[in-house]
Amino acid sequence: MIDQTRLPDEEVVLVCRDVPALVEAIRRLAIRGAPLLGIAGAYGVALAAVRGDSVEGAAEALAGARPTARNLAWAVGRVQAAHSEAGTAEEGTAAALAMSQAIAAEEAAASAEMARHGLELVPEHARVLTHCNTGIFAAGGEGTAFAVVAAAHRAGRLTHLWVDETRPLLQGARLTAYEAARSGMPYSILPDSAAGSLFAHGAVDLVLVGADRIAADGGVANKVGTYPLAVLAHHHGVPFVVVAPTSTIDLATRSGAEIVIEQRPAEEITHLVGAPAAPAGSAAYNPAFDVTPPHLVTAIVTERGVASPVDARGVVSLCDSAQNCVKR
Amino acid sequence: MIDQTRLPDEEVVLVCRDVPALVEAIRRLAIRGAPLLGIAGAYGVALAAVRGDSVEGAAEALAGARPTARNLAWAVGRVQAAHSEAGTAEEGTAAALAMSQAIAAEEAAASAEMARHGLELVPEHARVLTHCNTGIFAAGGEGTAFAVVAAAHRAGRLTHLWVDETRPLLQGARLTAYEAARSGMPYSILPDSAAGSLFAHGAVDLVLVGADRIAADGGVANKVGTYPLAVLAHHHGVPFVVVAPTSTIDLATRSGAEIVIEQRPAEEITHLVGAPAAPAGSAAYNPAFDVTPPHLVTAIVTERGVASPVDARGVVSLCDSAQNCVKR
Repeated sequence: MIDQTRLPDEEVVLVCRDVPALVEAIRRLAIRGAPLLGIAGAYGVALAAVRGDSVEGAAEALAGARPTARNLAWAVGRVQAAHSEAGTAEEGTAAALAMSQAIAAEEAAASAEMARHGLELVPEHARVLTHCNTGIFAAGGEGTAFAVVAAAHRAGRLTHLWVDETRPLLQGARLTAYEAARSGMPYSILPDSAAGSLFAHGAVDLVLVGADRIAADGGVANKVGTYPLAVLAHHHGVPFVVVAPTSTIDLATRSGAEIVIEQRPAEEITHLVGAPAAPAGSAAYNPAFDVTPPHLVTAIVTERGVASPVDARGVVSLCDSAQNCVKR
Repeated sequence: MIDQTRLPDEEVVLVCRDVPALVEAIRRLAIRGAPLLGIAGAYGVALAAVRGDSVEGAAEALAGARPTARNLAWAVGRVQAAHSEAGTAEEGTAAALAMSQAIAAEEAAASAEMARHGLELVPEHARVLTHCNTGIFAAGGEGTAFAVVAAAHRAGRLTHLWVDETRPLLQGARLTAYEAARSGMPYSILPDSAAGSLFAHGAVDLVLVGADRIAADGGVANKVGTYPLAVLAHHHGVPFVVVAPTSTIDLATRSGAEIVIEQRPAEEITHLVGAPAAPAGSAAYNPAFDVTPPHLVTAIVTERGVASPVDARGVVSLCDSAQNCVKR
């Protein structure tokens, strides 16, 4: 896979030959994005099976590598189940690999469907604001929110893409801008704190973001900085749309407030490219995600359709007959 | 003066021997903060007089070095006037120096008064959120908003100081954290985008920020990222208080919407410590300031008292008999 921490400077292919190497790559965000973590986790379990390592141990280590990402534990669990249901070791390995491939294919198909449904919510001449990275480096196919942006660009509806740089790890400036540039979209990068000025000047028509986990009430955990955008969008009457596959929905988590938020190391804030950016010994508050309550979300776009208004009923309707939404 | 771009790593004293060197230092933010820029600009005009350079040319160059900072043009104008009213060149130089010293002394006295008035708005056990830098590196004396924080700390009322890192130039992480550490305050640095999570968790009791310019209607221009904090504070019912000397008030600017916002270079966003953080050629939206409308500001604290509610009447009441507020 591509080591995302090296982009946009270099496209470095990172090869993980065992599960500990993959867990480490997930931890340091060389690979990230909830749906893509699911695909990586799935192949990680299959890798353990191929190597003859403990599949249970691999599944546990992978599922715990990033606790907030819903899809990771979900995909790992599916491959583990496929493996354990097989008869012989060879059959188990084959089943694990087949399930990993199926998950990757499902996510790619889901991306295309999200783009199709999401495009209906994009007006003509849209100036879209997005946060973090939700494209090929975050999910299968063309991604989640970014797949909608790409579809809007192809349909001639994208006037401008505003790209939040997304501190502390700058996934917006590094990855989303890279994908926007590659696709020939008109875009500008901004400090996360400058989004308020864009709203105040009426320069945002639509906010499109992804999700790391969606609770049963429609509460959305996503990259830190998403919630302030939702409050700003609400204050300015701008639609705030979440795009995520149903594999992101966790019916076992009743409300957004229950979602466990991963705290990241202080060094991501106190240092900049390795150099101190703050006094030695400074404490930092560095949550990886925040939670947006359902009443601030205009719509949730999934591969199975759109929930709007966003509430428990709307979320369940996306899951009714889907195998994707977990009911633990 | 201290080169603020080198903090907190090194305390480097920067000596500007002529006005072009000072203008350059102001432009690259080696010295910054609206009231402190006023003091620096004042001494800059005096420096030109001492050197026998053109005082008019110096005043024009200095006042234009950062267009949004209200105090800079105001202080420069006062020294220029003192100089031009004097009889001989020697008297002009002496008058310019005396006026510069008077402005510095006024700002230090104003800081103490702002701290006194502001303290009355700080509850017991306060968890205060601040943005950018408003202490000794931004104003005379102990500063503006930070002077209130320091007074609260001495009064035993400060439970925690939340320091927004303040992208792109990290004045919060570099300067405010430095001052907080020096004063022994309990503090944490956070990405600007994580402030929303703090509000959502009820972890902020009061927001204290400075101002670069206050319009006649009470609209406040301050470091970019201030407006989103005001919207979040409003959404969560948390008081949002602006602390600034009356020299920041510009009655000639009728509303916040009229304030000219300086756009900073794209490189502040697209590069990190000199290294590319975004694809080559990326455009950036990088306003230095944003404008918070008066209805989102709970109170404006000045050396002459507090305006609350914040409206045109309240602002004028702070200026009635003050020489500070400009009426061009």
